[in-house]
Amino acid sequence: MTVRVVAFDGDDTLWHSEGEFIATQDRLRALVAPYVDGEELDARLLERERANLARFGYGVKGFVLSMIETAIEVSDGRIPAHDIGTIVDWAKVMLDHPVDLLDGVRDVVEALHGRYQLMIITKGDLAHQESKVARSELTDLFWRIEIVAEKDPDTYRRIFDRHDIDAGHFVMVGNSVRSDVLPVIEAGAQAVHVPYVTTWELEHAEPDHTAAGYWEVEHLREVPELIERLDRG
Amino acid sequence: MTVRVVAFDGDDTLWHSEGEFIATQDRLRALVAPYVDGEELDARLLERERANLARFGYGVKGFVLSMIETAIEVSDGRIPAHDIGTIVDWAKVMLDHPVDLLDGVRDVVEALHGRYQLMIITKGDLAHQESKVARSELTDLFWRIEIVAEKDPDTYRRIFDRHDIDAGHFVMVGNSVRSDVLPVIEAGAQAVHVPYVTTWELEHAEPDHTAAGYWEVEHLREVPELIERLDRG
Repeated sequence: MTVRVVAFDGDDTLWHSEGEFIATQDRLRALVAPYVDGEELDARLLERERANLARFGYGVKGFVLSMIETAIEVSDGRIPAHDIGTIVDWAKVMLDHPVDLLDGVRDVVEALHGRYQLMIITKGDLAHQESKVARSELTDLFWRIEIVAEKDPDTYRRIFDRHDIDAGHFVMVGNSVRSDVLPVIEAGAQAVHVPYVTTWELEHAEPDHTAAGYWEVEHLREVPELIERLDRG
Repeated sequence: MTVRVVAFDGDDTLWHSEGEFIATQDRLRALVAPYVDGEELDARLLERERANLARFGYGVKGFVLSMIETAIEVSDGRIPAHDIGTIVDWAKVMLDHPVDLLDGVRDVVEALHGRYQLMIITKGDLAHQESKVARSELTDLFWRIEIVAEKDPDTYRRIFDRHDIDAGHFVMVGNSVRSDVLPVIEAGAQAVHVPYVTTWELEHAEPDHTAAGYWEVEHLREVPELIERLDRG
């Protein structure tokens, strides 16, 4: 096959993200320690996030609303309002957090730029994702940037359609098997899995290592060579 | 000029939206009535929303986070946690609210369909806007749907660029002078203002009735005739 379009996921593929969620959840554990132990807190929060996902979508604002609900619930309403104000402040800290690119990102993107049409396909809060894209200082290297609410096969098909992309010439690169790999393969394209150190539980999925179009590398720096290999056929 | 593309705003142009925000704010007034009078509450909330806008963006989730902050602030932290939980529940009520099309929407869109390439350009929470678009049952009539974080001239220029649209052949239809009219004219296209019964204070702007490319109608039903007139020259 010929490769024409190479698309990258944003969070935990181009820039670090999950670490901020984990650090904030640690702060919540400490804040509600008078009412509940850490393990129970994690389980209750995860349950809330799962229940809220379809309504709130991905991203910081929904995460913070789920944290607030969980804090009220585990404290039986005893948590002081000012502590809830502290949780809202964490949203601002997370949204303001500097964009911290993963090792090698600029080199890899520059190596592919000019040879392929490059995209970012990322999900989460629209304003936050746009701000991260802008602050990444990578914008000029990308042909198209798509911020989507969910990454399922139909999302990828819609993207192919609106940008006149042939699935057979498209490769997605990302850290989430559930979002960046399985739906892309289902939509008839290829995907490169670049594992990140941690995966949010609701993003977890098992890859099928034998599936056509599935590739895995240990480090983003291996991507240009792999793409070149796929491009040659 | 020839008209090729007609784009509609979503909230308060195709479907009702602001009314739900006003109704929810009325509920907040009642909830915090023990601490502050309604007028003061409105002013403090508006101030919060303005301060949070760049971080939180538009939409229900940011509105609810601003309501929570305001409730804590006006009560000096005395508001019970369960009342804050009630505010979070309002977010869900708002997100679940049925999509209620404005009078004449389907007729107008059907009248233009097939003669022009139709778009929706709307801003707000990504997941919520996608869900409203889907529930509007208008999707099949639209060529492209763009959900954006902010509607400034650069946003419109990016949309023209990515869909290969000539600004001279583009008309935007919407209720917000600040978002749907002024930036469109600045980007070199034309805009039709269809006033809605209420305008959120942060959306308010004065139209320049003498500007080239500025049109105003009283009711959406007048739009097809106006577009036809513009199209003929």
